Amino acid sequence: MRAVIMDAPGQITVGERQDPRIIEPTDAVIRLTATCICGSDLWPYRGVEPANHTPMGHEYVGVVEEVGAEVTTVKPGDFVVGSFVISCGRCEICRSGYPSRCVHAVFVAGNIGTQSEKARIPHADGTLVAAPGQPDADLVPSLLAASDVLGTGWFAADAAEAGPGKTVAVVGDGAVGLMGVLAAKQLGAERIIAMSRHADRQALAREYGATDIVTERGDEGAARIKELTDGLGAHSVIEAVGTEESFLQAIRSTRPGGHIGFVGVAHEGVTLPMDEVFFAQVHLHGGPAPVRRYLPELIQLIWDRKINPGTVFDLTLPLDQAAEGYLAMHERRATKVMLTL
Amino acid sequence: MRAVIMDAPGQITVGERQDPRIIEPTDAVIRLTATCICGSDLWPYRGVEPANHTPMGHEYVGVVEEVGAEVTTVKPGDFVVGSFVISCGRCEICRSGYPSRCVHAVFVAGNIGTQSEKARIPHADGTLVAAPGQPDADLVPSLLAASDVLGTGWFAADAAEAGPGKTVAVVGDGAVGLMGVLAAKQLGAERIIAMSRHADRQALAREYGATDIVTERGDEGAARIKELTDGLGAHSVIEAVGTEESFLQAIRSTRPGGHIGFVGVAHEGVTLPMDEVFFAQVHLHGGPAPVRRYLPELIQLIWDRKINPGTVFDLTLPLDQAAEGYLAMHERRATKVMLTL
Repeated sequence: MRAVIMDAPGQITVGERQDPRIIEPTDAVIRLTATCICGSDLWPYRGVEPANHTPMGHEYVGVVEEVGAEVTTVKPGDFVVGSFVISCGRCEICRSGYPSRCVHAVFVAGNIGTQSEKARIPHADGTLVAAPGQPDADLVPSLLAASDVLGTGWFAADAAEAGPGKTVAVVGDGAVGLMGVLAAKQLGAERIIAMSRHADRQALAREYGATDIVTERGDEGAARIKELTDGLGAHSVIEAVGTEESFLQAIRSTRPGGHIGFVGVAHEGVTLPMDEVFFAQVHLHGGPAPVRRYLPELIQLIWDRKINPGTVFDLTLPLDQAAEGYLAMHERRATKVMLTL
Repeated sequence: MRAVIMDAPGQITVGERQDPRIIEPTDAVIRLTATCICGSDLWPYRGVEPANHTPMGHEYVGVVEEVGAEVTTVKPGDFVVGSFVISCGRCEICRSGYPSRCVHAVFVAGNIGTQSEKARIPHADGTLVAAPGQPDADLVPSLLAASDVLGTGWFAADAAEAGPGKTVAVVGDGAVGLMGVLAAKQLGAERIIAMSRHADRQALAREYGATDIVTERGDEGAARIKELTDGLGAHSVIEAVGTEESFLQAIRSTRPGGHIGFVGVAHEGVTLPMDEVFFAQVHLHGGPAPVRRYLPELIQLIWDRKINPGTVFDLTLPLDQAAEGYLAMHERRATKVMLTL
C-alpha cells in the first residue's frame, strides 16, 4: 500500500509499505477515507524531533475491512473515527476517562502511521467509534477533525472548565486553539477571547464563536485579558502552543482559582517557574487529549450538523502530494491540511 | 507591646512595638492568646529570604479587644481564629473561594506580624472567624493550628480531591504534610500513604490516619507508591515541600487523571520540566491556602473534638523565648513551636 514516510527531517516520500493484516484478535484493519497533517508532525519535519524512515500520521477516518475474533463494537463496512492513541477501553485508567494514558497505550504517530491507504488498529473496541452510518462527503472533514484536533481542543476547553457564565481566553490560534474556541462555545461559555494576530484565523475564530479578539501577546496580551475581565483575568484559559512564553501568558491571563487546560505539546527543555505557578493559584490540567472519551459525543454533534469543525482544513490534497502539504504547513500557507485517498 | 522581630537573618529579638489601634472602620484589634512559628519563617531565618527588622508571625488566635464601626461579625470579647492572609470577604475572588488571593489581600507575615501581644487585623469580617465561645485551654493549640498549618493541609487534601475510595500519598512530613494526612482521613480517603523517614513523624502520621508509610524518596519513593497502587499511582497526592525534587516525586507518584494539591512554597529559581508535566496528565492545584474558606468548618470540628490537630505542636514556649523556638525548628529538634502569651 502507499504510505507517507519521513525519511529524515524535512524529507517526505509517499512510498510502499506492506499491507496491514490482523495480528491480535482485538485488531481491526481499516481502509482510510481521509487523513491529515498535524502541527505536531512539523516537529520532526523541522528536526526538533528525530525522523528516520518514520511512518507518519495519527489522525484518521475510514471503513473497517476486517476485524479480529474478539472485536465486538465495530464490524466490516462500518465508517469509523479513531483516536490518536491506541487504548484498550477496559483498564482502570481508560475507565476513569484517560484512554490517552491507557496502560496499553500506543501512540499512533511513529508506530502505526495513518497517512496511508490502510492501517491496523489494535484494541479496536477501545480505540475506534463507528459513525451512525456512511457519512455524506461534506461530513468527512469534520469527522476527521474529531480524531485529534477537535478532540484535543474539546479536552482543553473541558479541562479549563469552560461553561455557562464563564469567560474563556484561548492562547494559540492554530487548529487546536481554534477548535478550543468551538468547544468553549458548545460548552456554553459566555465570552470567548481568541488571542490571534492573523486576520484569517481571527475570522475563523469568530465563525467558531469568539466574541473578542486580542492581538497582543505575552504580558501585554495578559494585561489586555485582565482589562476585559474587571482586572481579574479569565475564568478559563486554553493553552494550545506549548512554549514557556505561551504558558506564562496563559497563567497570567487566568484569575485566581481559575482553570487552565493545556494541550500545546511541551518539548524537552521547556520549564515553568514554580513560584509563579504557586502564587497564581490556578488549576492546571492537560496533556495528550483523551480523545476517545469524547468521540461518541463529537461524532453525534457532527452527524446532527450542530458543529462544523471541518472548516479548519484550509488545504486538501491527495495523499500522493503529502510533501506539498507538509511544506504548506511548514511555511504557514496552510493551517491544517487534509489528505484524501 | 512585646513582639518578635527578626533584625536580620537568624537574629531574633523580642522587643517593643507600638500598640496597634483601629485605623480603618473595618479593623479589629485582638489580644493574642497564642501564636506559633511556621516552617516558612525559617526561610528568612536561614537567609533564603530577606529579613530587616521584620515583624514576624502570621498564625494567631486571640480575643477581640476593639472593632471598627463597620465590623459586624466579631465583637469585643469574642475568641477568634484568623487566616494568614487578610481578605475582604466581599470581592469576586473571595466569594469564589479564594480569599488568599482577595483583591485586597495582604500577607500577615512581614506586614502585620502576630508573634506579638496584640495585632491590628484589617478587614476583620473577611479574615477572622469567632469560635462558638471561650475555648477550654486544651483546644487552643488546635484552634491555632487551624490558622495556617491545618487550613493549609486541608486545602492541599481538598485540591488533591482526597475522598472516599481514594488512595492519597503525602510528600513531606513537616507539620503541613501531617495535617494533610489528618485532612485526607477526615475527607474519607480509603488509604493514606505518608512519605517519611523520621520515626516520630511516622508515629504522628499514623495517629492522624496514615495507613501506610513509605520511607523511600524521589524516584524510589514514587516507584514504591506505584507498587502499592497496582502500578498506577495514587489518585491524590499532597505536595508539602516546595522543591523541584519533591514536586517531581509528587508527579511521578500520581496516576494519569489524578490530582496533586501543592502547598509547599516554591521559591524563585525552582522550575518544573513541562514535558514531564504534560505527559503525566495530572491535575495540579495549589498555592497559598484559602484558609478563611475552611475556618468555620475546621473550628467546629475542633470544638466538637472530632479532630485534634494541636498535637502537631511538639514544643511550647513563652513568647519571650521565641529565639529558642526558631533555633529548635531550624535544628529540626521541633516540628512546630507554639508561643504562648
